[in-house]
Amino acid sequence: MQTFTVTTRERNEMVEITDEVRGAVGASGVREGICVVYCPHTTGAITVNENADPDVVHDLMLWYNRIVPKQQAGFRHGEGNSDSHIKTTLVGPSMTLIVADGQPVLGRWQGVFFCEFDGPRRRTVHVQVVGG
Amino acid sequence: MQTFTVTTRERNEMVEITDEVRGAVGASGVREGICVVYCPHTTGAITVNENADPDVVHDLMLWYNRIVPKQQAGFRHGEGNSDSHIKTTLVGPSMTLIVADGQPVLGRWQGVFFCEFDGPRRRTVHVQVVGG
Amino acid sequence: MQTFTVTTRERNEMVEITDEVRGAVGASGVREGICVVYCPHTTGAITVNENADPDVVHDLMLWYNRIVPKQQAGFRHGEGNSDSHIKTTLVGPSMTLIVADGQPVLGRWQGVFFCEFDGPRRRTVHVQVVGG
Repeated sequence: MQTFTVTTRERNEMVEITDEVRGAVGASGVREGICVVYCPHTTGAITVNENADPDVVHDLMLWYNRIVPKQQAGFRHGEGNSDSHIKTTLVGPSMTLIVADGQPVLGRWQGVFFCEFDGPRRRTVHVQVVGG
Repeated sequence: MQTFTVTTRERNEMVEITDEVRGAVGASGVREGICVVYCPHTTGAITVNENADPDVVHDLMLWYNRIVPKQQAGFRHGEGNSDSHIKTTLVGPSMTLIVADGQPVLGRWQGVFFCEFDGPRRRTVHVQVVGG
Repeated sequence: MQTFTVTTRERNEMVEITDEVRGAVGASGVREGICVVYCPHTTGAITVNENADPDVVHDLMLWYNRIVPKQQAGFRHGEGNSDSHIKTTLVGPSMTLIVADGQPVLGRWQGVFFCEFDGPRRRTVHVQVVGG
């Protein structure tokens, strides 16, 4: 298992981590297999989406912030960040990629992103690669 | 592959299964690898979120129940549980964890949960561990 | 890694790919392990849900189309398909299945689906199987 850190600057933010994931796959020496990118925090998540036009990330976060308001009638959690926990389960803290020819297989427009839902913070991401 | 059962008591409920997952990883003998926790039902899912304050789970379910109402104009499915199927695809029936030092890698506040969306029922969860 | 294509006919559509996934697992020769079904597009996703009653898929898509409207105040992405990208991250582009006895482990009512969120198009799906 390899680990790297991500420093976020906003409460809600997507930070591209494609280079870090590529580096971890390369360092593993695995040529054909599977790669798991995992967020050990309960208010952060991992996704894969377009990394060409930053407006895609803008619109994604706009929608998530609208659909999961910070304050909501009936919320009980005393820390006031239930919205962050909800977004984490909506996006998911784990992303499994395919490894082929020693590289993570990503489409032409795909990048891997750490999703911050309760920043700014210093976050940890784990990568595990299995195969041969 | 290992299998265990979960008995749910509510229509919508999150049941922590961290101990069962730890047990399955331990029994596999794998020290470094990957663990897949899989729900073979179409109205149940698996997630990872905070297990310290039960109010987090309360607020998660409150939001999911609000955003996916049981009755909705245009629904056709005769069993009347389309909301359960929608929640299942939103959360996802499969969760991949990293295994290191013979244990699933979980953050300080993370627990693994079976999400019941059409209970109460007796449910099955499968765990597969690969690695060496 | 194996690859197959899916031809979609609607802008939003779920196409069952269970047979293709079974074929890929069979061709891999792996008896016990894990299978990753991966969508390399940023406006498509993979899920597992009921394949018996097509009304379930109808209701799923109805809800997703309602909850993520195509036009929304504040959207910036010039291609006008931010809704497609949002749905992709909601459902997720990667699905990990368990392989046992040389077959993907699926519940009685489960099928694997490619989710088209910006069709119609010709799409690619990758499958990677690891294990022994």
